[in-house]
Amino acid sequence: MIDTSSLKFNSDGLIPVIAQDIKTGEVLMLAWMNAEAIKITLETSQVTYWSRSRKSLWRKGETSSHFQMLKEFYVDCDSDTLLLKVEQIGPACHTGAKTCFFTKVL
Amino acid sequence: MIDTSSLKFNSDGLIPVIAQDIKTGEVLMLAWMNAEAIKITLETSQVTYWSRSRKSLWRKGETSSHFQMLKEFYVDCDSDTLLLKVEQIGPACHTGAKTCFFTKVL
Repeated sequence: MIDTSSLKFNSDGLIPVIAQDIKTGEVLMLAWMNAEAIKITLETSQVTYWSRSRKSLWRKGETSSHFQMLKEFYVDCDSDTLLLKVEQIGPACHTGAKTCFFTKVL
Repeated sequence: MIDTSSLKFNSDGLIPVIAQDIKTGEVLMLAWMNAEAIKITLETSQVTYWSRSRKSLWRKGETSSHFQMLKEFYVDCDSDTLLLKVEQIGPACHTGAKTCFFTKVL
């Protein structure tokens, strides 16, 4: 478990979270968590974010069944970003793409 | 090049940027860019962020020589996060660690 009081949340009480596929190494998405989402994610091993648009907890896959199973959990050097290595069930992106980063500019 | 007006910046005019090592797939760090940092990064192929603490452009490696050479540049599905695949010169983290995500909670 982690003491969430050691993390640096932004003024909305949120911290950015990078989800990376533990098998392929692909970066799947960036989303946000509050302290409660972190607690639920660690307790259940199913990744739960905070939806900034819906302003509510959002268990990834709750409607799509495209769950993210937590495998590893890292905090960065200045405690203001999380990196989660996950087993992604189905596509990560709401568009049906494997990852949210399918638009290549360069 | 990218039309930065198509990107969703936050209320401070910034967008989160994930830097990933193009060779190893390791996630190196998360930092922030404004429109100008994006333009400079694409023009020079050397990654330049916006330092939120110093409130100025920050060419990664300008003091440490640990530059990030831009190799690939992606935008996510809702245009509010960037993923840069980079060649990292030396360690990415200011602590001297290879990546900023060296603290494993789980």
